[in-house]
Amino acid sequence: MSMRRVAIVGIGYTKIGEHWGRSLRDLFVEAALKAMDDAGVERVDALYVGNMMSASLQEQEHLGALLAGDIGLSGIPACKVEAACASGGMSIHQAYLAVASGEYDIVMAAGVEKMTDRLTPEVTLSLAMAEDREYVIFSGATFVGLNALLHRLYMHKYGAEPEDIALVAVNDHENAVNTPYAHFRNRVSVETVLSSPMIADPIHLFECAPISDGAAALILCPLDKARKFTDTPIEIEASTVSTDRLSVHERDDPLTLMAIVRAARKAYEKAKIEPKDIDFVESHDAFTILGVMTLEDLGFARKGEGYLLVREGQIARDGRIPMNTMGGLKARGHPIGATGIYQAVDAVLQLRGEAGKNQLSKAERGLIHSMGGVGGTVVINILRRAD
Amino acid sequence: MSMRRVAIVGIGYTKIGEHWGRSLRDLFVEAALKAMDDAGVERVDALYVGNMMSASLQEQEHLGALLAGDIGLSGIPACKVEAACASGGMSIHQAYLAVASGEYDIVMAAGVEKMTDRLTPEVTLSLAMAEDREYVIFSGATFVGLNALLHRLYMHKYGAEPEDIALVAVNDHENAVNTPYAHFRNRVSVETVLSSPMIADPIHLFECAPISDGAAALILCPLDKARKFTDTPIEIEASTVSTDRLSVHERDDPLTLMAIVRAARKAYEKAKIEPKDIDFVESHDAFTILGVMTLEDLGFARKGEGYLLVREGQIARDGRIPMNTMGGLKARGHPIGATGIYQAVDAVLQLRGEAGKNQLSKAERGLIHSMGGVGGTVVINILRRAD
Repeated sequence: MSMRRVAIVGIGYTKIGEHWGRSLRDLFVEAALKAMDDAGVERVDALYVGNMMSASLQEQEHLGALLAGDIGLSGIPACKVEAACASGGMSIHQAYLAVASGEYDIVMAAGVEKMTDRLTPEVTLSLAMAEDREYVIFSGATFVGLNALLHRLYMHKYGAEPEDIALVAVNDHENAVNTPYAHFRNRVSVETVLSSPMIADPIHLFECAPISDGAAALILCPLDKARKFTDTPIEIEASTVSTDRLSVHERDDPLTLMAIVRAARKAYEKAKIEPKDIDFVESHDAFTILGVMTLEDLGFARKGEGYLLVREGQIARDGRIPMNTMGGLKARGHPIGATGIYQAVDAVLQLRGEAGKNQLSKAERGLIHSMGGVGGTVVINILRRAD
Repeated sequence: MSMRRVAIVGIGYTKIGEHWGRSLRDLFVEAALKAMDDAGVERVDALYVGNMMSASLQEQEHLGALLAGDIGLSGIPACKVEAACASGGMSIHQAYLAVASGEYDIVMAAGVEKMTDRLTPEVTLSLAMAEDREYVIFSGATFVGLNALLHRLYMHKYGAEPEDIALVAVNDHENAVNTPYAHFRNRVSVETVLSSPMIADPIHLFECAPISDGAAALILCPLDKARKFTDTPIEIEASTVSTDRLSVHERDDPLTLMAIVRAARKAYEKAKIEPKDIDFVESHDAFTILGVMTLEDLGFARKGEGYLLVREGQIARDGRIPMNTMGGLKARGHPIGATGIYQAVDAVLQLRGEAGKNQLSKAERGLIHSMGGVGGTVVINILRRAD
């Protein structure tokens, strides 16, 4: 049996930032209505909401039915999907299956997170729920602390310098300058990054994605119906998921994120392509070191050599593998459950040729990488401009 | 395009109760391994976990990858789905789509909730996250209070007596006596129910589902491969979802749960049957009044006459529409995110002819009704013994 092919025909999103005066629901409604408007549809057949933290930050669950009602679509099937920081990517994967199955035609894959409703220590605790509460968080570990272990081990083992890793943040900020919806639109230098406060040695403040509010939404439909809604359908060539033990200490090689390796292999196989066929990558670089490791585990560099790609400027918009072309998690922003959807928005804009000053000269196929925890869940979606 | 037909080929579950000495993970592992054993499989291609409250009660999210790891299956695609108390039913729906799509062959639909890790007031707050936090819960409303409004209005409008409604609990307890995995296995009389403490007038303690711990899991696969795993495959003839505004005050008729009406209509249509073709129903009777209303909204009685069915004993195992044949939410138990999966377990046991002393004389097709909030989300699954 062959599956139905699936395309993205609408995108909608809010500006990412600290939306002190707005609610989770308000942000969602803006993104959802914009996406429906973009696709020219007045309703959808089903809704998936990617969200991680509404229970702990808003004391609100049941987002599927709640938010379907808020956009005037009470009645449609709706649910929340959660896979920590990969919730957005997972929302796309589930919406993809829903359309591929033949059960639903027009499906919204959305994501939303409102992080500024609480004080930072509460947000930190909430984020830590992505890790093993009983064995790791109980011990006092934080997310940035766990990434700091990888960062230090990576430099020690492969000889990378702090400057090499910091360049991931510099690249993100460079790209976000031209992104209207980015959280931070300023350039930063390596010196700025490395002189920012140390959060968990060797990770500096400017190497961490910010605490962001935002919502984004995609409209998916069968590829063979896509031109009814848009002149530039973007096909989801492959949508794959893999998981790993949540905790770094449980893995054979802490410096290889096996969930990326497995999900990427499967995605390349499904799309019948190789890494060299990817024109750009939107990477889940919640911390700079993850950006470097991701390049390797996705197959763009050999293990231990990802930092060289970065050092050589190959992740820039005119490089060999442009990365985070609209600003990535560090500068475009990281509203947890929405991040995977924003990555798709970034990619769709490139593939449609609507990326403005950041438009790549060649953007036919992009890979988006959504990740939960320190590689506990990885969702890979390969997007391509339909012929 | 015709969808792949889907069957249930394995079930696993823990006893429901107050598992003071066990963790959410421990309960899940027992249920998951038993389900795999029942189907004779050593791995599954994907995992869906229905759960509502792990963030607020265990400070743990990312259950998909965490629990996949705990059963030795790190690597498989896994995520959590949440739709309040309908999370279990939603887990089945998503697993159904995953198999129907052709992407995955053997999929586990599981549910787990560990409610006794916190004090009752915290659990009450966590349950209230199924309702609108900003407009309803903020005002001081509780779930039982909202159901009490319906209970009183129903009696007022349709002339039902407290005894009629209480019989729903009596029926549940009667059926749970023979259910080894039930939370409560004692009989209760109408007098016992109506003399139990008043929780929210007119709802008595013995009209409310208990706070339960439990985990259950199903193994799904394509129907045409099902006989490799079991001699008694149970087909999912229809799996449908509908939503409604979360809050009772937002609805045209508070006494009609439109999400049930819509999901049921669609399910009957898909299965090409009518309500009279259903041999038994597993109903989400978190409060007795919901059991009565569900009978009507599913089409087993006209609006305002569901209580007559109950009064006449037609929901008993030898009645016209046996309801909650293994004890329902009141007596078999209500571990929120797992409840929809337990309903499927109840139904599969009946359809396989393995329901022991509770075995119905005719059990070829059963309907399971999973509901979030006061009807905000409804998932209907119609299960039938495959030919």
